[in-house]
Amino acid sequence: MATSCTHQRIIEIRTPGRGFVDVTRPIAAVVAEAKVESGHCALFLQHTSASLVIQENADPAVLRDLERWMSKLAPESAAYEHDDEGPDDMPGHLRSAVTRTSEVVPVVEGRLGLGTWQAIYVWEHRRNPHLRRLVVTVSGASAAG
Amino acid sequence: MATSCTHQRIIEIRTPGRGFVDVTRPIAAVVAEAKVESGHCALFLQHTSASLVIQENADPAVLRDLERWMSKLAPESAAYEHDDEGPDDMPGHLRSAVTRTSEVVPVVEGRLGLGTWQAIYVWEHRRNPHLRRLVVTVSGASAAG
Amino acid sequence: MATSCTHQRIIEIRTPGRGFVDVTRPIAAVVAEAKVESGHCALFLQHTSASLVIQENADPAVLRDLERWMSKLAPESAAYEHDDEGPDDMPGHLRSAVTRTSEVVPVVEGRLGLGTWQAIYVWEHRRNPHLRRLVVTVSGASAAG
Repeated sequence: MATSCTHQRIIEIRTPGRGFVDVTRPIAAVVAEAKVESGHCALFLQHTSASLVIQENADPAVLRDLERWMSKLAPESAAYEHDDEGPDDMPGHLRSAVTRTSEVVPVVEGRLGLGTWQAIYVWEHRRNPHLRRLVVTVSGASAAG
Repeated sequence: MATSCTHQRIIEIRTPGRGFVDVTRPIAAVVAEAKVESGHCALFLQHTSASLVIQENADPAVLRDLERWMSKLAPESAAYEHDDEGPDDMPGHLRSAVTRTSEVVPVVEGRLGLGTWQAIYVWEHRRNPHLRRLVVTVSGASAAG
Repeated sequence: MATSCTHQRIIEIRTPGRGFVDVTRPIAAVVAEAKVESGHCALFLQHTSASLVIQENADPAVLRDLERWMSKLAPESAAYEHDDEGPDDMPGHLRSAVTRTSEVVPVVEGRLGLGTWQAIYVWEHRRNPHLRRLVVTVSGASAAG
């Protein structure tokens, strides 16, 4: 008989400055611990100048094109009222506003239900390295022993 | 007395090429099967060049304006490093990055808790027709018999 | 022993026209009522010309810069096919499409698991005041008495 359960972990991600960190593996590890058979894995990044994005895992050129495009969409060269922490501060908030703070990935047959070409990335928007906190909450039905 | 449950289905969506497919009905059908009274319906699209968006269900001109605007925001005419699959490939990734891969809709009194003017769309970003996989996970409290 | 539960409320938000309304407090109040120890709080806005965004809670200049940037990205001055309700109508849909209709925030130790600098905002995109409906669904494990 199925019983319902919730399993939560906070993962710390060390980013090397602006760019993408693939966090699929540590998230999959939390899902494995949870022993949920069918349900979902809710991801939440506790920051406003880094964000989540699910993108192609095959060709790294996709991420480079994405970074170049976003750099033009939210340029450092624009005049911002909020600029105390430097020219990359406000663009970080803009980039976060149009990508994701939370993302909910299904758990299917005990595993992250990603598509073949999908990986989950933390997108660091600041120029300097940061330590970022990602809350992972897995819930759903477990096949009770 | 209420008991907690999870119900999951994978829906296949045939898209006719770039544009919107209203998926509200097949999702509502999964919610009806689930017999959840109060909870939520988590949607996840297993692709990186198609995405989810919740938009107006009344005037189809809204979707046409949205498509025209996005075509300018992520133009096919730009030079991309990732272009093996044609000029619509990288714009598809850019469009997906700023719209939604996952969306969580509440279940209220046994039904999808959408607003009066809302419908759920799969937005195909590629020029050719595709078969897209949408994972629907309904969970929450059921009024047990 | 932990039991699983779901608690749902619909909050009405009165917006003063275009701009941000901080809804962190009323959402936190629903979380407190729910008596969920570990889980998540799913937010859903039942509209297509207002949206959700999680942004910095410290310097209000961040929100002003964000509004100015978005006003340029989705300008009122452009020619839209859908313009029956005025020049701010279609830009509202565009802004909503690239921000959030749903957001899922973790519940950690009985409270909203936001980062230090995060607040949850309803972003009104129309020029006139509106009454907006936000569905809050809290679920997870409660420490049963």
